[in-house]
Amino acid sequence: MHYLEPLFNPKSVAIVGASHHEGKIGHTVVKNIVESGYKGKIYPVNPKGGEILGLKVYKNILEIEEDIDVAIITVPANVAVNVIDDVAKKAKFIIVITSGFSEVGNIEGEKKLVETAKKHGSRILGPNVFGIYSAKPPINATFGPSKIEKGNIAVVSQSGALGIAMIGRASEENMGLSAMVSIGNKADLTEVEILSYLFQDEYTRVVFLYIEGLENGREFLDIIRKRPPNKSIIVLKAGRSKAGARAVASHTGSLAGSDAVFDAAFRQVGILRADSLEDGLNWVTTVALSPAPKGKNVVIITNGGGLGVIAADACEKYGLHLFDDMEVLKKTFQDVMPEFGSYKNPVDLTGQAGGKEYREALERAFKEDSIHAILALYCDRGDSIEELKEALIEVHKKYRNVKPALYTLFGGEGATSIIQALKREGIPAFSDVEDAVSSLYALYKVNERKDEGELEEIEMDEEKIKEVIENARKERRNKLLSHEAKEILKAVGIDVPEFYLAKSIDDAIEAANKIGYPVVMKVVSEDIIHKTDVGGVVLNIEDEKEVAEAFEAIMENCKRNVPHANIRGIEISKMLPKGIETIVGSTTDASFGKVVMFGLGGIYVEVMKDVTFRVAPVPKKEIRRMIREIESYPLLMGVRGEKRKDIDAIVDTIYRVGLLVDKFKEIVELDINPLIVYEKGAKVVDARMVIKVEK
Amino acid sequence: MHYLEPLFNPKSVAIVGASHHEGKIGHTVVKNIVESGYKGKIYPVNPKGGEILGLKVYKNILEIEEDIDVAIITVPANVAVNVIDDVAKKAKFIIVITSGFSEVGNIEGEKKLVETAKKHGSRILGPNVFGIYSAKPPINATFGPSKIEKGNIAVVSQSGALGIAMIGRASEENMGLSAMVSIGNKADLTEVEILSYLFQDEYTRVVFLYIEGLENGREFLDIIRKRPPNKSIIVLKAGRSKAGARAVASHTGSLAGSDAVFDAAFRQVGILRADSLEDGLNWVTTVALSPAPKGKNVVIITNGGGLGVIAADACEKYGLHLFDDMEVLKKTFQDVMPEFGSYKNPVDLTGQAGGKEYREALERAFKEDSIHAILALYCDRGDSIEELKEALIEVHKKYRNVKPALYTLFGGEGATSIIQALKREGIPAFSDVEDAVSSLYALYKVNERKDEGELEEIEMDEEKIKEVIENARKERRNKLLSHEAKEILKAVGIDVPEFYLAKSIDDAIEAANKIGYPVVMKVVSEDIIHKTDVGGVVLNIEDEKEVAEAFEAIMENCKRNVPHANIRGIEISKMLPKGIETIVGSTTDASFGKVVMFGLGGIYVEVMKDVTFRVAPVPKKEIRRMIREIESYPLLMGVRGEKRKDIDAIVDTIYRVGLLVDKFKEIVELDINPLIVYEKGAKVVDARMVIKVEK
Repeated sequence: MHYLEPLFNPKSVAIVGASHHEGKIGHTVVKNIVESGYKGKIYPVNPKGGEILGLKVYKNILEIEEDIDVAIITVPANVAVNVIDDVAKKAKFIIVITSGFSEVGNIEGEKKLVETAKKHGSRILGPNVFGIYSAKPPINATFGPSKIEKGNIAVVSQSGALGIAMIGRASEENMGLSAMVSIGNKADLTEVEILSYLFQDEYTRVVFLYIEGLENGREFLDIIRKRPPNKSIIVLKAGRSKAGARAVASHTGSLAGSDAVFDAAFRQVGILRADSLEDGLNWVTTVALSPAPKGKNVVIITNGGGLGVIAADACEKYGLHLFDDMEVLKKTFQDVMPEFGSYKNPVDLTGQAGGKEYREALERAFKEDSIHAILALYCDRGDSIEELKEALIEVHKKYRNVKPALYTLFGGEGATSIIQALKREGIPAFSDVEDAVSSLYALYKVNERKDEGELEEIEMDEEKIKEVIENARKERRNKLLSHEAKEILKAVGIDVPEFYLAKSIDDAIEAANKIGYPVVMKVVSEDIIHKTDVGGVVLNIEDEKEVAEAFEAIMENCKRNVPHANIRGIEISKMLPKGIETIVGSTTDASFGKVVMFGLGGIYVEVMKDVTFRVAPVPKKEIRRMIREIESYPLLMGVRGEKRKDIDAIVDTIYRVGLLVDKFKEIVELDINPLIVYEKGAKVVDARMVIKVEK
Repeated sequence: MHYLEPLFNPKSVAIVGASHHEGKIGHTVVKNIVESGYKGKIYPVNPKGGEILGLKVYKNILEIEEDIDVAIITVPANVAVNVIDDVAKKAKFIIVITSGFSEVGNIEGEKKLVETAKKHGSRILGPNVFGIYSAKPPINATFGPSKIEKGNIAVVSQSGALGIAMIGRASEENMGLSAMVSIGNKADLTEVEILSYLFQDEYTRVVFLYIEGLENGREFLDIIRKRPPNKSIIVLKAGRSKAGARAVASHTGSLAGSDAVFDAAFRQVGILRADSLEDGLNWVTTVALSPAPKGKNVVIITNGGGLGVIAADACEKYGLHLFDDMEVLKKTFQDVMPEFGSYKNPVDLTGQAGGKEYREALERAFKEDSIHAILALYCDRGDSIEELKEALIEVHKKYRNVKPALYTLFGGEGATSIIQALKREGIPAFSDVEDAVSSLYALYKVNERKDEGELEEIEMDEEKIKEVIENARKERRNKLLSHEAKEILKAVGIDVPEFYLAKSIDDAIEAANKIGYPVVMKVVSEDIIHKTDVGGVVLNIEDEKEVAEAFEAIMENCKRNVPHANIRGIEISKMLPKGIETIVGSTTDASFGKVVMFGLGGIYVEVMKDVTFRVAPVPKKEIRRMIREIESYPLLMGVRGEKRKDIDAIVDTIYRVGLLVDKFKEIVELDINPLIVYEKGAKVVDARMVIKVEK
């Protein structure tokens, strides 16, 4: 049994702050629990005693004879802090509805709640939540609407107001809920633990999660990765924009990670991200009500060509495949329609089609095995719709487990009345065709299971890496010098061409002769960042004489242009032939920790922002997907007569970078820029690393 | 008075095919006309005579004593063709509801209708339409729903079923209509003439146009350009996708132009294009009900932080500016909210806010001049909403002409009830915040007036151009040779570096010496397309000796690789220094005729498809906008230490190409590839043209 079972299926609940006054939160919670038909024990607690809704009120929670599964606190913040010790003595789980904690800067109070609870082995949901609903007992321990329909959708919301409004919307839309959890300030229990429960809850088919930020992104991803195949999740992550992120900060104090990283991390583990509330709600409803499609073939059935065209446009936009086997389409639909109809997909039954024609066409579409999903559209003509309504409901109920079918009814009262009837029967129905198509897209997406692949062992010279980092730390430098960064990359098995640090002209000549001409010489100094600008770089050096000249020129230039620079020498390396310049990098994200980045160098990164991220370390299979995501990918595959570049070499480099930053957390930033990729191999030209140095 | 006035405001109507049987189209039309309160004369026509709904039925239209403004034909297609002559004798405008014409391949019948009508000076709307509604008389001469609310939205639909359904939806959503026109097969009257009427119709504020294709794209754009400043248009052009386009073809036989060109043409004249039916309907409703915003500052007012964040995200997505003057925000809102509220935008009145707080906050937002648009959001808590409903309606009605305010009510029954009440009062209200934000975006967009600038005269050596084209035509060649295309570009004033066609080595050396080294040599032959592949190009030729060698090598290579090629000589031109490679092109679009294209050369066009179109000729002001549209535009502005390139030179080249193809319609395709752009100037390296040659 899951350790959160008592929270979702409590045998007893206490309401600390239960109120005698209707309209007060402490009253509404008791009322909702009672009205939801909860069968366990209900203990209202209020120093005034008496009775609430016929229930005995305890003056103190300690007076209750038994231990309690869930205690709900609704008293003001300062009181909550005072009673938490008593509550934690009695209750396994404490839901702190009370607001006025970290979201308004009261960090201390929140810390006190959590620490006190911890002392007694209790766990806290909240503070700043609207409570919990769970279909299993059932129990509605919220101060939201009392009417909640049972179903298989679990909603988890970081925002209280939005969550409460969602309860209302759910009931308005006939969405049945298995659970509704408000996670608020997430002082103790977070979405991660809640999800771990819901993913094993037999009542839950799909979770809709609203969050504004994540602090434990990695645990979150792991929970998603491990979910059973029959559980789906759709996430609405707000605070996508800069403006939105600002609003988040002023609202919950939650730390919004960079949105590009969120997108990438969600893609990495196969989370479907909704862009709007409406999409999110439409999508979960459709997923909750529909079987997974068994193949890609979608058929559109319509009584109006225009609506069919609009649906076909939307299908293309969402990447859905319109079934186009003319033989099967003809065989299936031709004799359901008048001569001027069209059995081509969209199948146009024409404006004359009514209940009879829809019944027949749908029945055939459901029966034909090579059709995998149905989009049925209807343009309301303002005439009678009873026969149609009946036909849709009957046929759908007969075949509802065979394949998904989504309905769009466009028009006036008649359309509205059919939509409502279908929703009451648990049939996905929409007033807008784009909503139906996007929901079908979501249904396909949530049923795709993501396999990132497995991590493989690599050899890593850990001693060497530690040594380089230690050296920099001794000097209190957080930026590694180019040759240090290269040492580390070499130690992790990345292809770094031979390089030397020369302190004198003789050193330099010896190094150049060892490497072979042409060579490149670059100044090495923590004080010089833009080496080229100060004359610290000479390319294409062909012989010993040029090495000597370059050495002197670089020294002179740097001393003149950056007089106080601490020059550590000059790095000498092979001048590499032309290839495709790429960038491989890593940074530390507030939500997900170490991430790796890949993009094509130069303007692709700087102007087109054509880059892609993953949470590190990343298995090679997933790295291949990552590389294919960039828009300039065809360049790597060879265009305009160029040969295909060595993608395996890029994969290997990113893979090793991922393992490196995962192992050495102190490397907070890393750039290989450029990594030059050839038809065979990929080589590091320049590298940059920032490490964490304790102050 | 507009010549279509009798169509929209007829003094008399005849219904040819008026039926005695309820449910028949010929009956419904008569019934709708009568029930719409039409005050003019109604003449049902049916050989059976008698009475319909108390109206005398004429056995033949010629029996009617007076001339008729509008005749509506509902008889079957074969009968319609027989009666059209009589009908056209009596009626100025003939609405042919009857289907079964070009949409099912009956081109002849449709031609007969139009030609017969023309003979008598009558005009035809249709065939294959559902009729017309016009608020002015009022008259509902459709076979759709009878209930239509008067208002200021005109709907023009190419699709019949969709149009009828829109009547229903309009009534369901309290959208008031000024007109509803079904244009069907557009055999005679098209959207262009209908728009020319609606743009001068005092009843109409905004037009919603649904089309699947355009045959007269240029007239359409001109009508849009000339519309008065207080008239707006929103277009839903379906058949965007390949799949959609196929559906269009099978539905109306309408020729769908390339969607990228539609997008560009719409942008060029400032048409707002809706992507979905729902967006389109939301947008027109909002535009119909709202004043134009006087500035960019948007304020979000909410009772739930979460909904505020979602709205802020959506505002960023749609490019709306969130007002951020903290001083004004503080002054305006701070004392309407509890201490833990937030006056930062989104303004969070907190979950405690009810009617009183919303009334006060809205009143202040309306009164504050530096706020230009309001998005008011409400998370329904499931409690009483009467006070709020009243507050929203009262405040909005007081200030409705001052600035736009859009409302989102998210939640259950309460939210639905407020939305319905607001809609009844003509207030834009939504159940989804993204719909509200996108509608506000649309309101901003339709109120932006587009100024494309003016065309200026240029000098063009028309004789030369005609001569080159004539020469090719004489040889029945539709592809011009590179040097011919360059001649034409030179004749239109485009910077084509000096070039010569050499027939011998001596010619070649003389030409190279004139041009100055280094030069490029290319084979000239209509039989060799990929010149480089067959060894037909030599670059970077430095002296006379190399010219002679190159000449021989090219001749030998080409004769060996393409033995039967007709080699006309070798083109010699300057080897140009490196610059940014761009492409300027032109093609002939099925809907809009001549269009020009611009993009950065090489992979930007081939891999990234980063190009932009305009309908030619294009004024320079608009060309500047066009160039800024491409994603790689920053490259022209100078990145990574590069200097800004000569954008004026690109503008001038595109401008001249636009005038050229507009003047010489026989140039059906044109590519300047590449046009190399420098810090000063832009030069043609290679050009290609295809002309129309009569077979």
